[in-house]
Amino acid sequence: MKIVFLGTGSGMPTIKRNVSSIALVFTNSNKLWLWDCGEGTQHQIQKTSLKLSKLEKIFITHLHGDHTFGLPGLLASRGLRGGQDQGNVQIFGPSGLDSYLEQIQNITKTYFPYKIEINIIPQVFSEGILYENEEYLVRYTEVFHNIKTYAYSIEEKKGKCHFLIEKAKKFNIPPGPIYRALKNGEKVKLPDGRIFYGKDFVSNIEKGRKIVFGGDTVFCENLVYISKNADLLIHEATFSQQEEDLAKRNFHSTTSVAAQIARKAQVKQLILTHISPRYSSNNKLTISEKDLLCEAQSIFPETLLAEDFMEYNI
Amino acid sequence: MKIVFLGTGSGMPTIKRNVSSIALVFTNSNKLWLWDCGEGTQHQIQKTSLKLSKLEKIFITHLHGDHTFGLPGLLASRGLRGGQDQGNVQIFGPSGLDSYLEQIQNITKTYFPYKIEINIIPQVFSEGILYENEEYLVRYTEVFHNIKTYAYSIEEKKGKCHFLIEKAKKFNIPPGPIYRALKNGEKVKLPDGRIFYGKDFVSNIEKGRKIVFGGDTVFCENLVYISKNADLLIHEATFSQQEEDLAKRNFHSTTSVAAQIARKAQVKQLILTHISPRYSSNNKLTISEKDLLCEAQSIFPETLLAEDFMEYNI
Repeated sequence: MKIVFLGTGSGMPTIKRNVSSIALVFTNSNKLWLWDCGEGTQHQIQKTSLKLSKLEKIFITHLHGDHTFGLPGLLASRGLRGGQDQGNVQIFGPSGLDSYLEQIQNITKTYFPYKIEINIIPQVFSEGILYENEEYLVRYTEVFHNIKTYAYSIEEKKGKCHFLIEKAKKFNIPPGPIYRALKNGEKVKLPDGRIFYGKDFVSNIEKGRKIVFGGDTVFCENLVYISKNADLLIHEATFSQQEEDLAKRNFHSTTSVAAQIARKAQVKQLILTHISPRYSSNNKLTISEKDLLCEAQSIFPETLLAEDFMEYNI
Repeated sequence: MKIVFLGTGSGMPTIKRNVSSIALVFTNSNKLWLWDCGEGTQHQIQKTSLKLSKLEKIFITHLHGDHTFGLPGLLASRGLRGGQDQGNVQIFGPSGLDSYLEQIQNITKTYFPYKIEINIIPQVFSEGILYENEEYLVRYTEVFHNIKTYAYSIEEKKGKCHFLIEKAKKFNIPPGPIYRALKNGEKVKLPDGRIFYGKDFVSNIEKGRKIVFGGDTVFCENLVYISKNADLLIHEATFSQQEEDLAKRNFHSTTSVAAQIARKAQVKQLILTHISPRYSSNNKLTISEKDLLCEAQSIFPETLLAEDFMEYNI
């Protein structure tokens, strides 16, 4: 899997950082899932190798414009680009997302030549499983912003297993289809009559990968819980720790809050995103983006600061 | 006045052409009026010297997404950038524009720290005066697309007048405030008792400038009428004349239709915009953008093809 940061700013676009959107690419199939879709997300995608036709799912953390204003245009352009034979798109998010898209579609007479399935997260449950297929499980949990907001985790159900090739060679098992059958855990009978069991030729299965998309929030135990032992937590750090009051007033995390969540949840890697334009080099504040990273790393060393078009393999 | 083309493509953005938006800049004051606001218009403005804080009016030709999806984000960013002391914004357009903005604002909880005045064009009148101040007059007329669509003209009420300085010198009139009074058409009495009249010292007043924004439409007599003797007609040429049927099916102009309107209305200059991505150099069609320009120029030689960020002084 690969994460591509499409928009890493907060509130409004700047030349350096577009508003929020993060892509998850399944590297075998190039299939694409998106988290949030600020204005200009489709323009950002055009500057990458990602394909809108490969887009399968969009998860919206909350309905603020810097996370949603790119949705109608991206969906419309997908239709114009891809013709009628591309797959459907599932969209998940908070209540109101359905009427947002329906109203815009009706008023602007926008036609989508593929099916859009909107799945609203039930308001009565503050956490749960949102989507599941053979390989992946997506959970949501409510976090604490000034509008209904969710964090999401995606967990791989099966982890990697390694075939013990040296052990197979030791038993003089001939390579080829038999190795594959053993790797798949099957029982194999060789022409010479010997019988082998797959479970004896694979290493202990590693835990599947887990990624968490934090949503906009102040410090929140729900987010710590859903992030437990994640391989990667991507979380907003809109404000510097030096502007903690401003962060609280706007229901946002500081660099330190993001790092504390990462430490408490014992994640492997934290990536900060949703950076306020106030720390860009054009502004007069004495706090720089480098300072933001240092603040977080002093609490949780395994921290990176996202940039637009940054890629992270997991 | 200066025209800045912010988005000159149709339907969906490409790397070269964003979706529709055209700025009119009043060069003395840097005040800004916009025609249409496709997704990413605020991003385009960031790449120019235009200032969102100077934005006064937005005219929407019709509600299709490639002309409107940038509106909520642009208005929101104007608020975030400019603080509470910037001026209000007036928006003019077809019925539905008001509920489009209200629904989006309510659902996404977007706050504008300035007043937005939405003026809906009354459906009972197919043409009329939309806005008037001391200097300018904006008219609308309905054109023929598959959704209610308007063309707009802006006319300068007073034209330029030239002060006949050599004539004033000949009469030994002393320069300074007296010249200014004469230029303003006033009656002046000199200390030596002589009396002069301003009308005798200015050249015939030139007609005020007139610009027309054509809107998306097939050939339409209303558009010819509103464009009569305009200094500049900016009109869509979504399709080549070689794809006339496609243009008609989609209620759009071809290059030839745009040129015929310009010729019939006897405008001074035609600029083609809203160019389909099908003619970009990446595509396999044998018709190029250069061909589009040639098609129009064969009917109306004074034709230009707009590009994003092209400026035109008038």
